[in-house]
Amino acid sequence: MQASRQVGPGRHTKEYGHSMTDEKHLRAIRTVWWQQDGPRGAVCMIDQSLLPGEVVILTLAHEQQVADAIARLQVRGAPAIGVTAAFGMALAISRLLAEQGDALTVEQAEAHLRSVGQLLRGTRPTAINLAWAVERMLRCARQAMREGCLLPELARVMHAEAQAIADEDFEACERMGEWGATLIADGDTLLTHCNAGWLATAGWGTALAPMYVAHRAGKKLHVFVDETRPVLQGARLTAWELQQEGIPLTLITDSMAAHFMRHGGIKAVFVGADRIAANGDVANKIGTYSVAVLAQAHSIPLYVVAPRSTIDLSLASGEHIPIEQRNPDEVTSIRGIATAPAGVHAANPAFDVTPNSYVTAIVTEAGIARPPYEQSLRALCAGYHTN
Amino acid sequence: MQASRQVGPGRHTKEYGHSMTDEKHLRAIRTVWWQQDGPRGAVCMIDQSLLPGEVVILTLAHEQQVADAIARLQVRGAPAIGVTAAFGMALAISRLLAEQGDALTVEQAEAHLRSVGQLLRGTRPTAINLAWAVERMLRCARQAMREGCLLPELARVMHAEAQAIADEDFEACERMGEWGATLIADGDTLLTHCNAGWLATAGWGTALAPMYVAHRAGKKLHVFVDETRPVLQGARLTAWELQQEGIPLTLITDSMAAHFMRHGGIKAVFVGADRIAANGDVANKIGTYSVAVLAQAHSIPLYVVAPRSTIDLSLASGEHIPIEQRNPDEVTSIRGIATAPAGVHAANPAFDVTPNSYVTAIVTEAGIARPPYEQSLRALCAGYHTN
Repeated sequence: MQASRQVGPGRHTKEYGHSMTDEKHLRAIRTVWWQQDGPRGAVCMIDQSLLPGEVVILTLAHEQQVADAIARLQVRGAPAIGVTAAFGMALAISRLLAEQGDALTVEQAEAHLRSVGQLLRGTRPTAINLAWAVERMLRCARQAMREGCLLPELARVMHAEAQAIADEDFEACERMGEWGATLIADGDTLLTHCNAGWLATAGWGTALAPMYVAHRAGKKLHVFVDETRPVLQGARLTAWELQQEGIPLTLITDSMAAHFMRHGGIKAVFVGADRIAANGDVANKIGTYSVAVLAQAHSIPLYVVAPRSTIDLSLASGEHIPIEQRNPDEVTSIRGIATAPAGVHAANPAFDVTPNSYVTAIVTEAGIARPPYEQSLRALCAGYHTN
Repeated sequence: MQASRQVGPGRHTKEYGHSMTDEKHLRAIRTVWWQQDGPRGAVCMIDQSLLPGEVVILTLAHEQQVADAIARLQVRGAPAIGVTAAFGMALAISRLLAEQGDALTVEQAEAHLRSVGQLLRGTRPTAINLAWAVERMLRCARQAMREGCLLPELARVMHAEAQAIADEDFEACERMGEWGATLIADGDTLLTHCNAGWLATAGWGTALAPMYVAHRAGKKLHVFVDETRPVLQGARLTAWELQQEGIPLTLITDSMAAHFMRHGGIKAVFVGADRIAANGDVANKIGTYSVAVLAQAHSIPLYVVAPRSTIDLSLASGEHIPIEQRNPDEVTSIRGIATAPAGVHAANPAFDVTPNSYVTAIVTEAGIARPPYEQSLRALCAGYHTN
């Protein structure tokens, strides 16, 4: 599984619970993966909160640790947290089974899964991929139990389902990259906000995947990267990914995007999504709405790249998307250093909603949706969503 | 002089060369002032690069130190650096005179002033107040020399001229506050970018002065403060000023401004300026153009508040304003902590230009200019600029 992932000139090996600084040991891995160790399993991930200064791999053997890692942004990115939650559900059942053995009843197992599903869904409310993955894992468990599956077999089935979610996400990234690359011309200057690359998914990424495909096809690119305050996913993660891939980039503060849209020759903006409503309204990292309004004012197209697992057809519009409010300390300090006077009031919405009128196209693994999104998204999702 | 400045509940005393942490000793001072010590003088200032963590007063006895302090942003804000440069010119002549005494010739003094004028003007190219103050000091010196002024008298005349520039700026802030307050209604929610308050001027500020006047008149306000990356003047300085004045505020990242324009009930945006061209194009802190485009997209008025010393009628439009490019380290690190991978390319334009079509009105000490600015600015400046 790890070998299927090539991450450019600086590669990563998987190691467990300690720092890796030796570049020559870095080998390709996924952002999140499952590690089987006898009857017990663990969820492994790169601790993204420490990047790019340190590359530390977390090995989480309890579902509560998985929930904490999501809440602390040690893993982030809508598709990646969906995959993480799926592995977390598989871990929940295999850990309980390993600890309780034959004493565990089917009813207890089912109740535990429901409770862990609640725990994981509650960590971050905006990205629908999290709820989507938990629901899919619960459906899988219920189906297996209905078919009389014994508990050890249930654990295996659930692990396989989580792996399928990860593999499908990997495949979806490949397809999004290919579709999205058709929107990029040789010599283009692009802009992106936050991190929607391989760290944010189980594969190559969403918004960055088209850039990777275009670059590998020999197209020359230059990417402006918004640093993306408050958590700096652009400066820490996207700049790091592009650097490793050898794609020329210019890191800017979020406040410089308008200036470079006017003067920097930016041809298109590519962003990811945390949830897309049925009408094409897009919830994504705070600042995306700002970039979208600015792009439209400069006649620059805005492309949203996301797998169908990010599309929530149950919501008619973006106004119904819950927006996570995070700790204001993220705004009043940067990496632990205070940047504002003590006691100052700060706001910290983690996401904003971009109305569909600012979205030029939505690139999915099944094709590119254009307005009116009510029709185009529903057509692309036909047969995909079971809810 | 210092007593004329009331800065709200937390006040400041002037002390020299060391930290002040004892709140009860804080008394009212200006941002920049002249300290006479026998025949020698010094330029004193709050070191704004350390705020709000430390309140340190710098005492600068050499004009090179003054230039360095401007370049390092230890003093910043267009009117404040104009006043600082004026005091720096006065210091240049009094220091040279104190060192060389009768050996100093008029020709040497004049050559030295020209050279220091170049030095000070070269520190920061965008804010016209710096060049404006240097030119005014040079004119004053030439006039005094033409009138046969002896060198000790020249030093006194130049100090008086610098003090006049500071006092006029103080008065201009009062008037801008009064004019600007007419644009604020009781209960308004406002947004500001960067710091255009008392730290940025010799008085109450430019963009913040109307808020202070409105607040003291009993109007209820709430101010959204952009943190203003990369140097964080909003988080460090504006939040601190408003906190001391007791005006409720919400600190946000620059990327949140659009979200709160849509959802936060923002009624108006107030910003300062570093240079205003004859057609009303405005150079101001990077990110101002972004805020201006976003404000217009949300039908929110944008008010630029600046004294006439900021208006450069010699430039037809903003495209001719030189934009200072600062060290990219300000973008790739925050207060000394790296936020991006080593070796990443970053851009750091310190200012941007907002075209006049985004500017609802320009508030000066002589009144409020409205479009078309070619006419209204020239009318307000009649008899003010000698060049």
